[in-house]
Amino acid sequence: MSDQRIEAGGRKPELLVVGAGVIGLSCAWRAARAGVRTLVLDAGGVERASEVAAGMIAPIGEASWGEDALHVAAMASADAWPSFAGELAADADRPVPYRRPGALHVALDRDEAAELRRVHELHRRLGLEATWLRGSECRRLEPGLATSVAGGLEAPGEAEVDPRSLLHALRLAVAAAGAEIREETAVAEVLVDGGRATGVVLANGERLDAERILIATGARAGGELLPDEVRPPVRPVIGEILRLRPRGAERPCERLVVTERVYVVPREDGEVVIGATMDDRGFDLRVTAGGVHELLREAYRVLPEVAELELLECTAGLRPTTPDNAPVVGKTAIRGLLLAGGHHRNGILMAPLTANAIEALLTGAEPPAELERLSPARFERAPEGVGA
Amino acid sequence: MSDQRIEAGGRKPELLVVGAGVIGLSCAWRAARAGVRTLVLDAGGVERASEVAAGMIAPIGEASWGEDALHVAAMASADAWPSFAGELAADADRPVPYRRPGALHVALDRDEAAELRRVHELHRRLGLEATWLRGSECRRLEPGLATSVAGGLEAPGEAEVDPRSLLHALRLAVAAAGAEIREETAVAEVLVDGGRATGVVLANGERLDAERILIATGARAGGELLPDEVRPPVRPVIGEILRLRPRGAERPCERLVVTERVYVVPREDGEVVIGATMDDRGFDLRVTAGGVHELLREAYRVLPEVAELELLECTAGLRPTTPDNAPVVGKTAIRGLLLAGGHHRNGILMAPLTANAIEALLTGAEPPAELERLSPARFERAPEGVGA
Repeated sequence: MSDQRIEAGGRKPELLVVGAGVIGLSCAWRAARAGVRTLVLDAGGVERASEVAAGMIAPIGEASWGEDALHVAAMASADAWPSFAGELAADADRPVPYRRPGALHVALDRDEAAELRRVHELHRRLGLEATWLRGSECRRLEPGLATSVAGGLEAPGEAEVDPRSLLHALRLAVAAAGAEIREETAVAEVLVDGGRATGVVLANGERLDAERILIATGARAGGELLPDEVRPPVRPVIGEILRLRPRGAERPCERLVVTERVYVVPREDGEVVIGATMDDRGFDLRVTAGGVHELLREAYRVLPEVAELELLECTAGLRPTTPDNAPVVGKTAIRGLLLAGGHHRNGILMAPLTANAIEALLTGAEPPAELERLSPARFERAPEGVGA
Repeated sequence: MSDQRIEAGGRKPELLVVGAGVIGLSCAWRAARAGVRTLVLDAGGVERASEVAAGMIAPIGEASWGEDALHVAAMASADAWPSFAGELAADADRPVPYRRPGALHVALDRDEAAELRRVHELHRRLGLEATWLRGSECRRLEPGLATSVAGGLEAPGEAEVDPRSLLHALRLAVAAAGAEIREETAVAEVLVDGGRATGVVLANGERLDAERILIATGARAGGELLPDEVRPPVRPVIGEILRLRPRGAERPCERLVVTERVYVVPREDGEVVIGATMDDRGFDLRVTAGGVHELLREAYRVLPEVAELELLECTAGLRPTTPDNAPVVGKTAIRGLLLAGGHHRNGILMAPLTANAIEALLTGAEPPAELERLSPARFERAPEGVGA
């Protein structure tokens, strides 16, 4: 293992990770840590969804009827987060600001309350921990809530992590594990020879060979990079998001506060994140007046003190979204070609389970059962493919 | 005249202008152009209100009962704008994007319509050109207006100028007229000897002598710089303001559109400015979530297509505001010390008249009669002062 690390620069990598968002870096870190000689290619640029994510680790908020496979995987990944964060902090030699302030999912009128109670039924069926509270009980927990709050679900296990701090720690951990990151290196094409992936051609024309290739290019995974037969149906879904901070000492809430239309994430350092719009308009990162207006209006409706915060940043990210809103993680029909993508709004939440799955596939261990139903095979056009 | 210019670097300036916003630069330009050896001190920094101003030249929108002196001056300055812009463009050898798209002041309900009709009475009395239009007539002029628009005033003479482009042209014109601008040069104190201003002490301790000193430091004019007896009661009133641009070809309106709570200024190059909040909270330039929310909400109420615009910038500026909302322009009780400040929300609008007044005072010409009632004397504690 240590020999491989020393020689990583000179020999063909065992794993080429295309993409340096939270998914690519998490997989690269776990792979390198397991002794796989790994090279990460980072295209750079402004499209990285992880940079602008709110960093909610809130599977209860994501539970939807008819998405059980996704939900089971999300719960497993949320459970894996504390040890993932602990190991990452140790490897990176840097704190990872993961914490569990809990969440309050609130209803602002009777219709929303009825819907939230219906979701609560689903939670019970899935065995999730959440308690129904009356409006006054919600306000006792979070005194900043608007008086219109008609009821809510307290979910004490829900967590958050600052994605920028997380990305920084992942980069340090990747390096500490002996892997290399090549910056400003975009991939134009994956090379396939006789049903096996053999390497990539970079945007500058250079060719890189590798034993295995992991595609973790977020919203770009559905693009020209991959051959037709294994190209996942991933499309960009823009999310506009705001970063704010208190002007004094007080923050608007202690827990994650979530409504049907908006969420408010308070960080330990005082930062407050308000997200996120959802819009299908291609590779367009422009922040609209309407999106910002909607976020501020809805946040103000639930937590009026939000109006007092300083507005620091209005940005947008592109969620990599599949037709069933669930990720595609695992082997493809092309041998040596792996996918870790389509995480929609759950990239941060799903990073630990995704990285565990990719590590298992690379080292021959048993991959997490929760990801079985989320393999790329469900979208492939040539289901006879046999995999890596 | 040409001798003085050539020697400006080496000899004591005849005029030291403290402040390089639109007022300071306009006065410096006119003074230098008239042959006065001029040095401008620019403190730099982010506080310059001119940088974030909307650049409306819309005296009708500013007309208020009981502010006749201000209004007469505003009208005179608006009338002076075309020749000011023309001369500036010639001296700067650069276009000045002054234009007159006209304005539509609209009412969004019957109460606002009643108030706007009352203002229209005032306009008639002041001899202003404005026509009352029904809601449908407003929408014929500006099809993007919300159907709730109940009526409005068309003011075809109202104009706008991009203040950043204006500042750039002023700097070029100041230099072309032979004056010098010293960057990053803050003034700590004005020196007074025997009732006459003799120079300034810079923040770095350096002393600069001058025959006359013009204070044009915006919201800072009420601070420690000036001796008590001539310090004008100028306070900062923050205004938050947004800059946007169309994502396609279409802009939300052709004219300046103004309601009781917001204005929307379309520029020739496509930029759209939405302003501005008003708040008394000292030297605090932080943009609040509540301020941005209010601007977007009110702009959306009157021009729904604003929601489609890309949001480029949320900033704030500090209006230099006096107790009667009118500027203080002219000589003070200390000989050789002049003031050009307190322009509140009318700095761009009032620049030509202010610069003409200062030029007249420096060259011994007759100052514009419209500024007589706006002299610093009205706020001075020692009215027996005789002036410069």
